[in-house]
Amino acid sequence: MNIMKTNRTSLVEQVATQMENLIETGHWSIGDKIPPEMELMVQFDVSRNTLREAIRALVHAGLLETKQGSGTSVRSASALGFAIQRHVEKSSLIDTLEVRLALEREAAQMAAERRDDRDIEKLKGCFLACQKAAATANLDQFVDADILFHKAIVEASHNQVLIDLYEHMTDALYSSVRDLIILHAPFNYEEELHVELYEAILERDINRAREYVNSYSNEFKKALTSMTEE
Amino acid sequence: MNIMKTNRTSLVEQVATQMENLIETGHWSIGDKIPPEMELMVQFDVSRNTLREAIRALVHAGLLETKQGSGTSVRSASALGFAIQRHVEKSSLIDTLEVRLALEREAAQMAAERRDDRDIEKLKGCFLACQKAAATANLDQFVDADILFHKAIVEASHNQVLIDLYEHMTDALYSSVRDLIILHAPFNYEEELHVELYEAILERDINRAREYVNSYSNEFKKALTSMTEE
Repeated sequence: MNIMKTNRTSLVEQVATQMENLIETGHWSIGDKIPPEMELMVQFDVSRNTLREAIRALVHAGLLETKQGSGTSVRSASALGFAIQRHVEKSSLIDTLEVRLALEREAAQMAAERRDDRDIEKLKGCFLACQKAAATANLDQFVDADILFHKAIVEASHNQVLIDLYEHMTDALYSSVRDLIILHAPFNYEEELHVELYEAILERDINRAREYVNSYSNEFKKALTSMTEE
Repeated sequence: MNIMKTNRTSLVEQVATQMENLIETGHWSIGDKIPPEMELMVQFDVSRNTLREAIRALVHAGLLETKQGSGTSVRSASALGFAIQRHVEKSSLIDTLEVRLALEREAAQMAAERRDDRDIEKLKGCFLACQKAAATANLDQFVDADILFHKAIVEASHNQVLIDLYEHMTDALYSSVRDLIILHAPFNYEEELHVELYEAILERDINRAREYVNSYSNEFKKALTSMTEE
């Protein structure tokens, strides 16, 4: 009886792990419905009960969601992303934003060291998009372009662990980051910093790259303090 | 039938979340056996099947483990820790160690800004322990004291998100970090850096703190390169 139980648990675990791999490798994308129960039972060669338990484990891990009447679909591409999301929800906003800025500062220095021509092209496109959105005072476009600019710097670090951490953290912070950018946007100060930071990375100037991140970090923290005091 | 299923899933989810809270708040500690099934069924007011499914979800999330014959015990205190562990296993060692060093560099700067007297006491105790272990050439003691020294710096940042990320990453990297420290230990170079870094934090000198982390990061990366080339 004990042996049966262990085997059963481990079969559920095996199916859950296989489904997790399908999600993490993008075979099942966010928002997609997963295949019908019968198909999965055949594919994994398991009973309906085992399959359902594996699905519930992934619902708990945040990778799948089951909605009444519309079946089961993919909610998050990564267990790490979901764990960071939940951790951010439980943590202080100031601490989390500070870690995000710290990751940006490290990324800017690595990017200045390692950027290739494709990174430079991408960064240029991003800050031109920021400038265009600022010129037409389109706040939503500005927020998205600004976030893409910072993601492009992190991508230019060519460190996949840093890229994953930063992206999950930025996704988890999206609405707070948006509020802070909008609070800043009227002053337009960040536009010059974008260009300066881009140029430091282009010229492979690690110290200048760090200094520009320090400048906007300080501005950002001041804005945050005034926001939380309101 | 559909409604039943949804309610049932959500009950499992509720019990799993309650157990997760008991683990994350330390009411159930790592290594502890969880209470007997009957007791938990009464406590959560659920059936045996619901309880077992909730337990399986937490086994999949890495918080619990079920061993044949010895029941179910707590494996990890945090879903984030387990997600980071799994991500580290799938990632490049060089990228992961680089992010760990990047977090140390950020932490050292925050520590220089914010350390209080208790942090200083703790740091002093840690580097004295390192020196003692180095003097007696006790490698295992040296590794543990070195890791505690770096953790103490991160704690002096007083940023809980940074502390959690760093600790989970260090735990996930323990055996690699250990190998690298042992590779270094004969040169004993790090001892001076410990003292210098401690003094920079004591004197609230942010730039010097950063520079010392840069020095040992460079040494560490060189050692890593020679290790991976062997």
